[in-house]
Amino acid sequence: MKAVILAAGLGKRMGMQEPKPLLRVFGLPIVEHTLLRLKGFEVAVVYSDERVAQFLRERYPDVNLIYNPSPDRENGFSLSCAGRFVKRGESFLLLMADHIYSPEFFEKLETSEVTKVFVSKFCHKPYEATKVRVEGGKVISIGKGIEEFSYFDTGFFTCTYDVIDVAESLALKRERFTVSDVMQVLSEAGKLSFEEVNGFWVDVDTPEDLKFAEEKIRESLIKPTDGPVSKLLNRKFSTRISPFLIRFDFLTPNAVSLVIATLGVFASILFLLGKGALGGILTQFVSILDGCDGEIAKVKSIKSRFGALLDSLLDRYVDGLIVCAISLSLGGGLLVYTATFLALSGVILVSYASHLGGFRPYFITRDVRMLIFMLGGLLSAISGSALHLTLWFVGILSHAGVLYVLLMSGLEHLNE
Amino acid sequence: MKAVILAAGLGKRMGMQEPKPLLRVFGLPIVEHTLLRLKGFEVAVVYSDERVAQFLRERYPDVNLIYNPSPDRENGFSLSCAGRFVKRGESFLLLMADHIYSPEFFEKLETSEVTKVFVSKFCHKPYEATKVRVEGGKVISIGKGIEEFSYFDTGFFTCTYDVIDVAESLALKRERFTVSDVMQVLSEAGKLSFEEVNGFWVDVDTPEDLKFAEEKIRESLIKPTDGPVSKLLNRKFSTRISPFLIRFDFLTPNAVSLVIATLGVFASILFLLGKGALGGILTQFVSILDGCDGEIAKVKSIKSRFGALLDSLLDRYVDGLIVCAISLSLGGGLLVYTATFLALSGVILVSYASHLGGFRPYFITRDVRMLIFMLGGLLSAISGSALHLTLWFVGILSHAGVLYVLLMSGLEHLNE
Repeated sequence: MKAVILAAGLGKRMGMQEPKPLLRVFGLPIVEHTLLRLKGFEVAVVYSDERVAQFLRERYPDVNLIYNPSPDRENGFSLSCAGRFVKRGESFLLLMADHIYSPEFFEKLETSEVTKVFVSKFCHKPYEATKVRVEGGKVISIGKGIEEFSYFDTGFFTCTYDVIDVAESLALKRERFTVSDVMQVLSEAGKLSFEEVNGFWVDVDTPEDLKFAEEKIRESLIKPTDGPVSKLLNRKFSTRISPFLIRFDFLTPNAVSLVIATLGVFASILFLLGKGALGGILTQFVSILDGCDGEIAKVKSIKSRFGALLDSLLDRYVDGLIVCAISLSLGGGLLVYTATFLALSGVILVSYASHLGGFRPYFITRDVRMLIFMLGGLLSAISGSALHLTLWFVGILSHAGVLYVLLMSGLEHLNE
Repeated sequence: MKAVILAAGLGKRMGMQEPKPLLRVFGLPIVEHTLLRLKGFEVAVVYSDERVAQFLRERYPDVNLIYNPSPDRENGFSLSCAGRFVKRGESFLLLMADHIYSPEFFEKLETSEVTKVFVSKFCHKPYEATKVRVEGGKVISIGKGIEEFSYFDTGFFTCTYDVIDVAESLALKRERFTVSDVMQVLSEAGKLSFEEVNGFWVDVDTPEDLKFAEEKIRESLIKPTDGPVSKLLNRKFSTRISPFLIRFDFLTPNAVSLVIATLGVFASILFLLGKGALGGILTQFVSILDGCDGEIAKVKSIKSRFGALLDSLLDRYVDGLIVCAISLSLGGGLLVYTATFLALSGVILVSYASHLGGFRPYFITRDVRMLIFMLGGLLSAISGSALHLTLWFVGILSHAGVLYVLLMSGLEHLNE
């Protein structure tokens, strides 16, 4: 399928040097967020600022560039320029280069016999948004000045060639016209349908919008399966570190996983050397960074089965190494080794059970374990038995976690 | 949906006291194999021998019993008796109580507008089977005497009410007639379609058929993911033990899992007490029995997510206990504990990796590990360091297994 991205807007309200599509949200240019989700699409970008073209030539050489010499004729004219790219009879996706769309927009996209505007019940600045009025499954009116409306226009469309026809004919009649004007013509002909989307979307016009979009992306990275420490603490940091890491191409999610695991190995070495406090602090730092690989993968839309496996295995190895390192630092003894056996098998088994059973014991997810290791490490500066107790504590809680998963699965089984 | 099972055959060729549907294959009466797969169906059984009715009343009180006073009028007449159970306009499943059908038959069953005979390219006794000739998606002829044929009739049908109509009208005209005669009438009217099935099926007429059916079920229980020791050794025993265990209702698959795990705990205690040889032999016995819970679940068609979780977790705990028990029996020392850490984390991690990654390291699946524990236990009678080496061996191989899964997943990722 083809996709047309309109990037010729003047962006007067940003008060910045750079063209809007190149402003960074969560470390990446706005337009790149969209391009990353359009894998498999044949993409054209309509631009007027040479810097946009320059960026695309360097980073996305496959993207077709369509120059719009008259950006002041507004985005309707930009759309008419896409007639050079879309062929008669073809359908295409139409997007705005200064919008951030949530991943939900790109799920289950399919060619449609009719032009569809993607609409939402939500908009962060309703006063200046384009509104959509619908009746009997069709859009009957679209524009900014509509009083009674059902939805907001998200600036995301699946189009038939009709859209190009209308844009080209309007270009002959009017000096300035917008995409909404084109859609309004279609809606009057009964040719505009709509689709409701639940994900967020942000039309970036001001620096405040930029911040809002970044906040929305951050929110979307908190997984429902995140443990309590992750939710309340780690994600607040990791979602601020990831935008920095994501700028570097060589820091792929898998590379980040490996770096984090290496830091985890250092943490275990610190424990082994008897530097419990330092080891503990580094462990908590590793726990924070642990979110970054997944966040980068999600924002870049490059999550993979292999990446998930690598991440999980590295996590388990680091968990195990920390347990063994603490154990060896305690100098042996049957009691210590028993605690070690318990903790070592526990930290791996609780993840194993959780993966297999589909239930998460939130009292002993990895973020909680790592916090306990940090607390144990810090307390070891005061009490010599803190780390020994930590092993018992983690061990017992982990196996309780396994039991929890088994019980939950058993209850589910009984209710079936 | 409704299902009709014809169980009124006389079974003259078995030379046995019991009616054919009650003869045991893999520990269960033939008819029970079919009934276990008809959960959710409203079932009626047409019988003539009171012992069949007696069995069903006791074990399957929900099954409707239809008495056929004239079994010598053959199974076409039995089918006509089902008119009391199936209502005009209803479709139903038609099966034979003396056939063993593989699970594939019962997958994706759906009501159809047309009567269908399930056919197969295979039959273990082609000379006396009912043959089917097809043309253009329809059956054009069905019966024993057909010279040129495409498939064998498996005795498994999805029927419309037409089948009852034809059976009832034949019952008025002929003394003896078969299900094939009914289907032949339908095929002549262009009303018989067909569906090819790949699974096995056995029409049990002789004691040899009984053995053949049992062998087929046994074969079907060898999983493609079975490890080498399991394939070559363990399954040969477990598939002969399961038919014995399956007779006892209280030995549910989960109960069997618990019993096996308990034996595993005993094995680890033997290791702990320094009885390496005995512990090893019991470990291998546990490994053999380990197939039984899954086999019973599959034959009884009661596989559950909870059962799979319980089985996997118990296996991991027994693995871990054996490692810890061997370790403690060796009397400590840094080298022993290092080997223990390696083996304990390894036996759990290799299963974890295998589940997550979807690849199985066949050089260190559980059956192989258990065999190594047995060999280590036996050798410990000769050499004092055998069990210590066993820990290193299992540990290194297990982590190599994790690496193998990671590499395979990485290769798959690169090829995507």
